[in-house]
Amino acid sequence: MNLLRRYLPILTWGAEYSRKTLTNDLIVAGIVTVMLIPQSLAYALLAGLPPQIGLYASMAPLILYAIFGTSRTLAVGPVAVASLMTAAAVANVAAQGTPEYLGAAIALAMVSGLLLLAMGLLRLGFLANFLSHPVISGFITASGIQIAAGQLAPMLGIKAHGESFVDLVKSMAPELGHINPYTAVIGFASLGFLFWVRRGLKPLLRKFGLGERAADILTKVGPIVAIAATTAAVWGLGLTAHYVTIVGAVPQGLPRLALPPLDPALWAKILVPALLISIVGYVESISVALTLAAKRRQRVDPDQELIALGASNIGAAVSGGFPVTGGFARSVVNFEAGAETPAAGAFTAVGIALATLFLTPLLYFLPNATLAATIIVAVLSLVDLGALKHTWHYSKADGAAMAATILLTLIEGVEAGLIAGVGLSVFLHLYKTSKPHVAVVGQLPGTMNFRNVKRHAVVTDPEILSLRIDASLYFPNARFIEDYINRAVAANPAVRHVILECPAVNTIDASALESLEAVNHRLKDGGVTLHLSEVKGPVMDRLQRSHFLQELTGKVHLTQYEAVASINPGLALRTLEAARVISYQ
Amino acid sequence: MNLLRRYLPILTWGAEYSRKTLTNDLIVAGIVTVMLIPQSLAYALLAGLPPQIGLYASMAPLILYAIFGTSRTLAVGPVAVASLMTAAAVANVAAQGTPEYLGAAIALAMVSGLLLLAMGLLRLGFLANFLSHPVISGFITASGIQIAAGQLAPMLGIKAHGESFVDLVKSMAPELGHINPYTAVIGFASLGFLFWVRRGLKPLLRKFGLGERAADILTKVGPIVAIAATTAAVWGLGLTAHYVTIVGAVPQGLPRLALPPLDPALWAKILVPALLISIVGYVESISVALTLAAKRRQRVDPDQELIALGASNIGAAVSGGFPVTGGFARSVVNFEAGAETPAAGAFTAVGIALATLFLTPLLYFLPNATLAATIIVAVLSLVDLGALKHTWHYSKADGAAMAATILLTLIEGVEAGLIAGVGLSVFLHLYKTSKPHVAVVGQLPGTMNFRNVKRHAVVTDPEILSLRIDASLYFPNARFIEDYINRAVAANPAVRHVILECPAVNTIDASALESLEAVNHRLKDGGVTLHLSEVKGPVMDRLQRSHFLQELTGKVHLTQYEAVASINPGLALRTLEAARVISYQ
Repeated sequence: MNLLRRYLPILTWGAEYSRKTLTNDLIVAGIVTVMLIPQSLAYALLAGLPPQIGLYASMAPLILYAIFGTSRTLAVGPVAVASLMTAAAVANVAAQGTPEYLGAAIALAMVSGLLLLAMGLLRLGFLANFLSHPVISGFITASGIQIAAGQLAPMLGIKAHGESFVDLVKSMAPELGHINPYTAVIGFASLGFLFWVRRGLKPLLRKFGLGERAADILTKVGPIVAIAATTAAVWGLGLTAHYVTIVGAVPQGLPRLALPPLDPALWAKILVPALLISIVGYVESISVALTLAAKRRQRVDPDQELIALGASNIGAAVSGGFPVTGGFARSVVNFEAGAETPAAGAFTAVGIALATLFLTPLLYFLPNATLAATIIVAVLSLVDLGALKHTWHYSKADGAAMAATILLTLIEGVEAGLIAGVGLSVFLHLYKTSKPHVAVVGQLPGTMNFRNVKRHAVVTDPEILSLRIDASLYFPNARFIEDYINRAVAANPAVRHVILECPAVNTIDASALESLEAVNHRLKDGGVTLHLSEVKGPVMDRLQRSHFLQELTGKVHLTQYEAVASINPGLALRTLEAARVISYQ
Repeated sequence: MNLLRRYLPILTWGAEYSRKTLTNDLIVAGIVTVMLIPQSLAYALLAGLPPQIGLYASMAPLILYAIFGTSRTLAVGPVAVASLMTAAAVANVAAQGTPEYLGAAIALAMVSGLLLLAMGLLRLGFLANFLSHPVISGFITASGIQIAAGQLAPMLGIKAHGESFVDLVKSMAPELGHINPYTAVIGFASLGFLFWVRRGLKPLLRKFGLGERAADILTKVGPIVAIAATTAAVWGLGLTAHYVTIVGAVPQGLPRLALPPLDPALWAKILVPALLISIVGYVESISVALTLAAKRRQRVDPDQELIALGASNIGAAVSGGFPVTGGFARSVVNFEAGAETPAAGAFTAVGIALATLFLTPLLYFLPNATLAATIIVAVLSLVDLGALKHTWHYSKADGAAMAATILLTLIEGVEAGLIAGVGLSVFLHLYKTSKPHVAVVGQLPGTMNFRNVKRHAVVTDPEILSLRIDASLYFPNARFIEDYINRAVAANPAVRHVILECPAVNTIDASALESLEAVNHRLKDGGVTLHLSEVKGPVMDRLQRSHFLQELTGKVHLTQYEAVASINPGLALRTLEAARVISYQ
């Protein structure tokens, strides 16, 4: 592929852009803009930032993603989990409400963008693989619970602080006597309305004859109705006199473009959180992009997506915004409304810009409680505790990693939860492979195949011990295998030949080589020959670079059948003949 | 096995103890005692401790090992690498020469002993596996270099400080003008003599008709001669007037038994170093024990060895000593001198006790330079830079981990080196498995076996894509496999069936299951059937706990041959017939 077209996907879809696509993309942009305005404000507040920062983060990133992104339908911008992670990271370096806090959030977007860009250019996308599915799923569930709990405070008109669910709940408990009834009514009314929109409105609209898609999209516009109604109520009933907290004056006008100051001490402090936000954001974004692309048989390039998200975050930082990524809900709306190209995203950015220029005075009386309600409704759909049960049922190790991620996120906060989840996943994997499955195998009558003596009726020779090693041989299990073979031979004094069947041995590292050499020497002293069979090409290539094959007392055989046949040809052939009888039946 | 006999191996060998064994063990103890006295003093100085602490650490631990240890010939006590690690750990919490420094060293032995004991009781010996062979070998080489460099200072009568080789060399450079010529002469004379004893004495003794073993043992007693000669020289020539540093007054008498104070703040600070010392010490000790046991076909129980080393270190702490482990040199002397039971160790402890009671005044004029020379000679045999070359040649990843361990140990110190080595080993393993080897396979004519199309002349069907996945399917590679299959199918439009041959798939975790489900759905949409073959029992058991098998469009086949035969029986059988012809030739 042309280098420029590889790094600038816009050149591909832009070349085929037609008037019909333009009309379509413009309509989609209108719908998404309406949905995005309240979301942007709400997520900025969730991150502890002034509301306009959410709008700023919804302009430049969308345009940059349109230029660099490979998904036709992904919608980037502020999302719930990244906003929560931003709040946690920035609270460590500055106090909320100070210019330093805002500066740190912008710097976080910058560092996160640079990290994503570097990962994309260096093709380090595999780093995202270390977030296993159970860990990311547990993390998102825990984040959803924590965000919902945190938003109860603005919904009730009380104060709350804390970087974890547990801290939040602790800080809210003594405040429960100070609930503002006006705020609480607005909050719960909005919450009830929004839940009804989710569950009840769609069937109603369908009853009135609306199409499936149109009904779906209209339900996403629900928050705008709640916002309009509660804003009008606060203004009309003069509720600010009753201490209902409102958004207040949002500066009109576009953000000024400026490079965030290069502050090495600050950047060093936010490096780890920025890395975690980048990876979590990337994983969330790429899953959405792949899911939507598969439905229309489109391609998404995982490495180029890193570059696009990197550019989007750098764009957010340069235009005074905070970290962004591809969001699930907005991308689905974009997709279902019929977005055909990333241009729909660019037009959405223009829509947000127009709103920032002309509509912010309308938001003055918007109660924070309504925004809190929209966040709660959005994040509760992220919570999936049932997944914990399924995962635990499928694999205790995965379930444990997921449970640890959820618990630590709730108790210690987002960074501790993620790091513990990844660490535990890696540790449990190493632990499991440190005691691998080893099967004693015998020949399946009528075939040249060998199977576990415990699971199949197979033929064995007491002088031959055939072991199938169900693991790569590497440092965590090198000594285990050494010990296993020594014990197996000691327990079977008749054995004169040991054959290691290696179809599952994908690698033999230096530690395991050392162990195999020790096994070979010890068996030799005991008059037992060591053979290998079914050694894979890449493993064999490597063994040939050591002295092991010269020292090996037996031989390396292409198949386990050949290995046994070279020692006891009569038995091997008789067992195979039995097979022939079966295969002609 | 009887529980008491399992945890107290002394009950087993003690029951068969005879007068002949006693005589033999007593002779061995005499030889080892003579060798151990200078070593104990030297390693205490290396750890920055008063010389008598080395003697204290050579009594109780030996007796406790005799009770709990499963090796018949392992000799525990202070060793070079653990002494260096002790110095590095304790220097972080107290200044050398203070009572706090000594207290921290004793606490380190206590914590290390408790950790080893816990690991043994909880059967956590596998933790030691995470120190891969290249990492431990690189670490020992780097430690040897650093110890030797550090001992140049007492050998030259200058000062040096620093926790890494680089720091040591930096601190010694400006001191080179202050070399004490008397000290340097003693030091280099001792060094030259000791090297000659190692290389030249044995052939000479053999020429005079001594047996191989006797010659070997006599050469180990060389240090005692150097000590006697240089001590006499310092005393006779009054060299202390020329500022030759001597050991000085070593308190006579046995150590007082006392529990080290329980200081949680101190214990927390030394926890990580104590863990590292425990694991490094254990790995060193168990390798020596296994090597010696294999030569006499004896058994060593790795978990009980943890308990024995734990007890030994707790014993060291309670009797005012510092961390100990099984040492290579002393164990070999013990073995070669003919030790038959761990009682030889207990008798050695008595020998050391007698020396502490009666011989310490003789050590007054012993010059530190002589002890430094004995250390240098001992540790240079640990340095094996050739291993780096072999390891790199065999595996770049293992070579890189080893090189990183050596470099970081030399530059940043022992803890950084070890942690970096282990971290890099784990990371490189995960990285390698994140892009696993996948082979397109076909049927080997005349057999039911399938092999890589690139390496063998095999038969394939254009409608069937058979992929052998050479890796366990788990989170680091789940997305890679998903991507690989999607691309392979897109590149081969004729394909109607994909068969994943899974003999090397040792596990499928929750992340990989998620990916397989996605692959199955996408292939289904494209009219392609997904089959599995040669799925192992444990993997199949687990898959049956999910919905994957119900949703799978194809089937799970016992063998790859069966899978292909179920789709194109004619081709499979014709290819097998061809095989028969070959096998009758």
